[in-house]
Amino acid sequence: MAKPKKTPRPKAETPKGFRDYFGRDVTERAEMLASIAEVYHRYGFDALESSAVETVEALGKFLPDVDRPNEGVFAWQEDEGDWLALRYDLTAPLARVYAQHRNDLPTPYRRYAMGPVWRNEKPGPGRFRQFYQCDADTVGTASPAADAEICAMLADTLEAVGIPRGDYLVRVNNRKVLNGVLETMGLNDNAERDAVLRTIDKFDKVGEAGVRELLGKGRLDASGAYIDGVGLSEDQAGPVLAFLTSKGADAQTTLANLRSAIGESSIGAEGVQELETIAGLLAAQGYGPDRIEIDPSVVRGLGYYTGPVFEAELTFDILDEKGRKRQFGSVAGGGRYDDLVKRFTGQAVPATGVSIGVDRLLAALREKGRVGGSTQGPVVVTVMDRDRMADYQAMVAELRSTGIRAEVYLGNPKNFGNQLKYADKRGSPVAVIEGAEEKANGVVQIKDLILGAQIAENATLEEWKERPSQFEVPRDQLVAKVREILDGQG
Amino acid sequence: MAKPKKTPRPKAETPKGFRDYFGRDVTERAEMLASIAEVYHRYGFDALESSAVETVEALGKFLPDVDRPNEGVFAWQEDEGDWLALRYDLTAPLARVYAQHRNDLPTPYRRYAMGPVWRNEKPGPGRFRQFYQCDADTVGTASPAADAEICAMLADTLEAVGIPRGDYLVRVNNRKVLNGVLETMGLNDNAERDAVLRTIDKFDKVGEAGVRELLGKGRLDASGAYIDGVGLSEDQAGPVLAFLTSKGADAQTTLANLRSAIGESSIGAEGVQELETIAGLLAAQGYGPDRIEIDPSVVRGLGYYTGPVFEAELTFDILDEKGRKRQFGSVAGGGRYDDLVKRFTGQAVPATGVSIGVDRLLAALREKGRVGGSTQGPVVVTVMDRDRMADYQAMVAELRSTGIRAEVYLGNPKNFGNQLKYADKRGSPVAVIEGAEEKANGVVQIKDLILGAQIAENATLEEWKERPSQFEVPRDQLVAKVREILDGQG
Repeated sequence: MAKPKKTPRPKAETPKGFRDYFGRDVTERAEMLASIAEVYHRYGFDALESSAVETVEALGKFLPDVDRPNEGVFAWQEDEGDWLALRYDLTAPLARVYAQHRNDLPTPYRRYAMGPVWRNEKPGPGRFRQFYQCDADTVGTASPAADAEICAMLADTLEAVGIPRGDYLVRVNNRKVLNGVLETMGLNDNAERDAVLRTIDKFDKVGEAGVRELLGKGRLDASGAYIDGVGLSEDQAGPVLAFLTSKGADAQTTLANLRSAIGESSIGAEGVQELETIAGLLAAQGYGPDRIEIDPSVVRGLGYYTGPVFEAELTFDILDEKGRKRQFGSVAGGGRYDDLVKRFTGQAVPATGVSIGVDRLLAALREKGRVGGSTQGPVVVTVMDRDRMADYQAMVAELRSTGIRAEVYLGNPKNFGNQLKYADKRGSPVAVIEGAEEKANGVVQIKDLILGAQIAENATLEEWKERPSQFEVPRDQLVAKVREILDGQG
Repeated sequence: MAKPKKTPRPKAETPKGFRDYFGRDVTERAEMLASIAEVYHRYGFDALESSAVETVEALGKFLPDVDRPNEGVFAWQEDEGDWLALRYDLTAPLARVYAQHRNDLPTPYRRYAMGPVWRNEKPGPGRFRQFYQCDADTVGTASPAADAEICAMLADTLEAVGIPRGDYLVRVNNRKVLNGVLETMGLNDNAERDAVLRTIDKFDKVGEAGVRELLGKGRLDASGAYIDGVGLSEDQAGPVLAFLTSKGADAQTTLANLRSAIGESSIGAEGVQELETIAGLLAAQGYGPDRIEIDPSVVRGLGYYTGPVFEAELTFDILDEKGRKRQFGSVAGGGRYDDLVKRFTGQAVPATGVSIGVDRLLAALREKGRVGGSTQGPVVVTVMDRDRMADYQAMVAELRSTGIRAEVYLGNPKNFGNQLKYADKRGSPVAVIEGAEEKANGVVQIKDLILGAQIAENATLEEWKERPSQFEVPRDQLVAKVREILDGQG
């Protein structure tokens, strides 16, 4: 007789490309986001939290990252017929929110938003399908003062979370200047302009020479593949390269270089004027080129944005996975986009904003030792006599009432070694022990686990004797002694 | 000739049952969750953030709310075939996480989690398909000390967020006691037991008499419909009603009543013993019946949990939509559930936990005036001369550098009335004005908008003259004067 079929057990696995975050990974991110929110709030930005789910119709398809135009969303159909999807960024929902609530919102509307977004793309190492974004945008004003404000706020934010001045740089470019260059070149064909834009986007990777080749006949890739070029002549490609390399010793020089690159183009002149206004406003508030500078080599997002474009880079070196030094690189980017709301209302609504790469910035702070490192484990009160659980609970209640993180061991108390192993796994700084003898004598044993670990690793026998890591103290001095040890561990 | 078809504009609407949260609604919730996390952390609980998306397989179907067994999830199929879904609570993901990472996690594992969950159910007034949960659970210990700890932590949490002692009560019951009662009654048939459980679940709504009818022949509903009863005799129903109404003047009396209700049942005795242990541990830590009490009339979740069950109720009165007084009611619930992890591993893993109804608790705090009310609008620096934007930006930079929330008006500055309307919409406490004349004289005008609004509403002409709401101060006293006004507005 066949055995009755059993339902197989479900696999205990996150879906591919998703992950769990534990302990510090959660709290450090929360603390960083709270610091960022504090700066945004001080600048007059209001919090907005839209739902994770939008209609596919409202979401549209406006991914800023031109490298991955076919990137998908997670979508499903409702019983009644509407297609819904998880948001892939915080900008598309902002456009929907502004269109929906525009009569109730102030104009201009400054808002910030932080939370997870989802991308239905192939996961890879360190590349997840759910990740955090943190955005600030100003909707409803075309004033370059709004762009300048975003740049200043971005610099303040980086310093507020712990990136020292000198370790970051906010760089500003302008899509209109590039449009002016293209106009001067006589490049009015949209397909050709798009091809040039896509090429410029590779400037960070392939450099000036690479872009020159790609604008011309083409280029042999590092992989050995030949990439066809746009087909411009050396003369035609010239102004584009002049634009990309027009950064001078100071803002005035850069702006002069740009003015010559755009020739007679009026849209180009508008773009240079905007950059000049932004530079002036920032200088008046004391944001010098050590923090924010005009830099036409910023190409990220130039194809997406319609005016000023910003990027925040961390300029200190780190070692990559192969041990080579390289700059940490970009942690935030943004710019002006004037067409998002128009989809809904038919009216063009100017908007500008920035998005911080939360995970990258957090990684940078860890790199700089600005987060983590502090002992977060709880004091563990061990259980020597399971009938006296109430005594142990009273101890942790006393410790907690003074703000000390503490817990009673709640596993099987039979094996004391397991209790100490547990404390070790928890990263506990201190263990408290009260057996029958201690109870009778009105004392408790306090074990400094950090010192204990250090001694176990390094100490000579003499040192071991001199610096006991376990003390006996009167029961009523429990809290004071634990506090003393914690303060000493710093 | 037919007109060319235009793509219709997308509708700017949240999907049905979803909503946007603005400003204070976001920040007040974030502050409340941070206070809760602080207490949980102090108790030794570690943060966990799992992804919003799980495989349908891992999620299973373990909704605690027996009223709505067909409640759905938002699910979709991956290209490769896996079905994925948005989590509907934070407990099912915890079971998956624990099963997946159990070798790396401490045992017992105390964790807290907070974040949105999604339910694919029919939306209604005040009933949304995305909402926040905030859970704390201890996995891997069967000790009633873990249950007691959850109850104490829940009481501390309510006080930490602003519910005063006396305005809440944590009530504790135990499913095992009920099982003992059913055993004593000789009710071993599963279908019959389930019918009794479902009936008990209505105790809150229909009271003792209603439950008596429903356990017997049946009952005429308020709607006029006749609800068939379980069909027990009056004698058989007796012990169930004795259980539900066994709460005495103190814990000892209640426990004695329960002991007589369970007769010779050993599972019942186990349940009473657990309640006695919990009561003893809590009393030893000073949590008296003014904060936590044993109350067998707690029925919510009795069908779902396997041991102790907890519920936190707010005991102060509010007025309902019809102006009638009623108790605010439940804001948190939980209990012991020992089978969730077993689905994955085959091993039973005891667990206990609590879930706070974030939106209800926030509503309670608003009701008590514990959040909100403070002016959060920014100081608005108006633009009198658009060529001097740098001057205005410098003012807000000065204000912000001392921690004052401030912004420059970035809309069209032509109409000054619009600037003041904007300040009003933003809830601004103060407007700053510097026209050409003020600039020439080295002064600024400061307008106290809160006082101005009060005067406009109430003041006589004399008061108006005596308490000017607009002042002229030297430019270098801008920050000091604004600070003075803000402090005065308190």
